[in-house]
Formats: sequence, C-alpha cells, structure tokens
Amino acid sequence: MVTTGIVLFDDCEELDWAGPWEVFTMARQAGDIVVTIAERAEPVRCAKGLRVLPDHTFADAPELDVLLIPGGHGSRRERENPAMLDFVRRVAPACNWVTSVCTGSFVLEAAGPAKGKRVTTHWGAIEELRGLAPDLTVLENVRYVRDGNLVTSAGVSAGIDMSLWLVGQIWSVEHARVTQYAMEYDPAPPYAALV
Amino acid sequence: MVTTGIVLFDDCEELDWAGPWEVFTMARQAGDIVVTIAERAEPVRCAKGLRVLPDHTFADAPELDVLLIPGGHGSRRERENPAMLDFVRRVAPACNWVTSVCTGSFVLEAAGPAKGKRVTTHWGAIEELRGLAPDLTVLENVRYVRDGNLVTSAGVSAGIDMSLWLVGQIWSVEHARVTQYAMEYDPAPPYAALV
Repeated sequence: MVTTGIVLFDDCEELDWAGPWEVFTMARQAGDIVVTIAERAEPVRCAKGLRVLPDHTFADAPELDVLLIPGGHGSRRERENPAMLDFVRRVAPACNWVTSVCTGSFVLEAAGPAKGKRVTTHWGAIEELRGLAPDLTVLENVRYVRDGNLVTSAGVSAGIDMSLWLVGQIWSVEHARVTQYAMEYDPAPPYAALV
Repeated sequence: MVTTGIVLFDDCEELDWAGPWEVFTMARQAGDIVVTIAERAEPVRCAKGLRVLPDHTFADAPELDVLLIPGGHGSRRERENPAMLDFVRRVAPACNWVTSVCTGSFVLEAAGPAKGKRVTTHWGAIEELRGLAPDLTVLENVRYVRDGNLVTSAGVSAGIDMSLWLVGQIWSVEHARVTQYAMEYDPAPPYAALV
C-alpha cells in the first residue's frame, strides 16, 4: 500500500501538483492513498488563483511513502517558512521517494533532502538555484533527475513525466503504461517548440 | 480581452480542467480573465477527491468568450442536470469557442452545442457516446476535433493540447509557442505507449 502526499502552499503552480495528482490517483490500487497536505486547513490560493481545500494539515498528515513538493513563485517564500521546513524534515527520512516539480526543488534544498545532490528545476530558475545553493549540481535540458531516492523534475508539465516514471518504479512499468493509456497521455503539442 | 470559463461539477476529472486552466492562465494577457464556474458556491468534489472552490456560480458568471466543459464520470449525471443544461444553453451562443475535454462532450451534446457535430471524447467512451447520440460523428484516435467554433478533445491530458491549439487561434501561434515554453511542455512519456 502506497501513500502519496502532495504538499500545497499559497502561490504553488497549479499544474505542478495537478499533473502528479492525476497520475498517482489514476495509478492507485486498493489501499493506496493520495492526499493533499498544507500548513493550515483553510483553502490554499495557488499561483494562478485556483483555490483548493487540502485533505490534511502538516499536523495530521498520514505517514508517507512518496512526498511531492510542487513549485510556483511561492516556493521562494516556503524555503524560508519554518513550518514547511520542519514538515519536510520530519517526514522525508521515512519516505521511499522524495520528489519535487519545478521550483519545488528550492524547498527540498532548503529543508535538506536535496542538499548537495543532482537536481533540476524550471529552465527559468536554473541560474537562480545555482546562485542560492552552489553545492548543488543543477542539470539542464532534462525532464527529471534521480539522485538516490530524490527525484526532481523540470517545470510545470514535467511533473507528469516524472510521476509516470515513478509509477513504473513503485508499481511496475506495465502499470505505468496502463496509467498513461487511461489518462490518454499520448501528447501532441500543436505548434513547434520555441527553442 | 478574453474571458475563459472552466465549468466544474462533482466528479469532474481533475486534469481535464487543470491542464486547460494552466494553459489559459499562463497565456492570459492584461485584461484577460480565466475563471472556474460551478452550479453552487460550495466546494466541488472532483472525480479523484480533490476539493476546489469555484470562482463563480452559474448565477453570477461573467460573459464568456471561451467555455470549457471537462469530463469525468460526473458528466453522465450532468448531461441530465437541468441547471447545467440551462447554463450551457444560456452562455454558449455568445461564446467564440465552445469546448470540452474527455466526456465533457457528453454534456455539450445534451445541451445542444454539439448536436449533430463532429466530436471526440475519451477512447473508453467512444462507443458509449455513439450509442447515446447516433447523429454525432464521433472521431477516434485524434487529440481534438474542431467543427465550426466547437472544439472537443480526447481524454484527460488531451485538454492540454487542445487548449494550446486554442491559444494559437485566439492570440497567435507565436504566443502559444511562448506559453508552451513557459509551462515547459516538451513532453516525454517515460515508457512506451500501451497501444
């Protein structure tokens, strides 16, 4: 049985966590749990204005197998929020996987699990992260980076790819392929990439 | 100025609307608005359990340029919900684009805008929709289908591709490419497709 905890905070980017939420809830089997967790029980106001009610607070979150920290411009505040740092420090050691999307890696660096590790983040935040934490190895032009049980993804939509990869590691590659099919993840960006 | 309304209802599938939400909020320019709209002001409980507070109710929704109806198993109930059908019938005629993701096309068929049109839906609901509405032309193995100002997408993640295509039509292809880049939408499914 696998419990996945997706942390929400004000100004977290919506797709950063909603993509992984869809993947993990689509993948879950009998007994598996996927929950949102925030510092307080009140609605979280995301970066683009979406308001979400968390399932748990830091105080009553269940034990987690997978921890996921999304990004968004709120991640800069959260990397200095003692309640967030305490929560990550308390739960991460018992997790099988500690993960982030986008600038969620900023929080994992500040809290400890990513210190000195190989990570990635949104392309627009690569230099900022290198400046904040020179001991990190911040990789570019990758969808996600694994370093031990730490997995950090690139920006926003990259969390979907990372989460599907994790489903393959946690359950099985075959189950990840079924999940991908169920969410009809056969992506076809309509226009040519900008760069 | 473009106002996009994303309709929520109990048991709507999370990524069906969260993908388009991310695309349209990332694309919006000064004066553009993206809002969630539900029948009632209370939290919507989505298909996988996420609870979201809508920005507007059917009664106080702003005038819309783009209407988007997500899918999820609640779409079967909503296609028989007079409040939903009345809302779609009231707002769709003034919209530049009437759109759906996944089984949201079931609702657009029942309400009128998709009647007799070329549409698509989630691969698992193709036969069900053909059975319910034999006058539709339900296309398979496509990410999205345009028929006039009606655009219907395939399942769940296909709403991202459809929304980016719409950004290209509404603003410009160049702006859609910038949006795609901002959300780092350079997808790389980690495992081979199941079918």
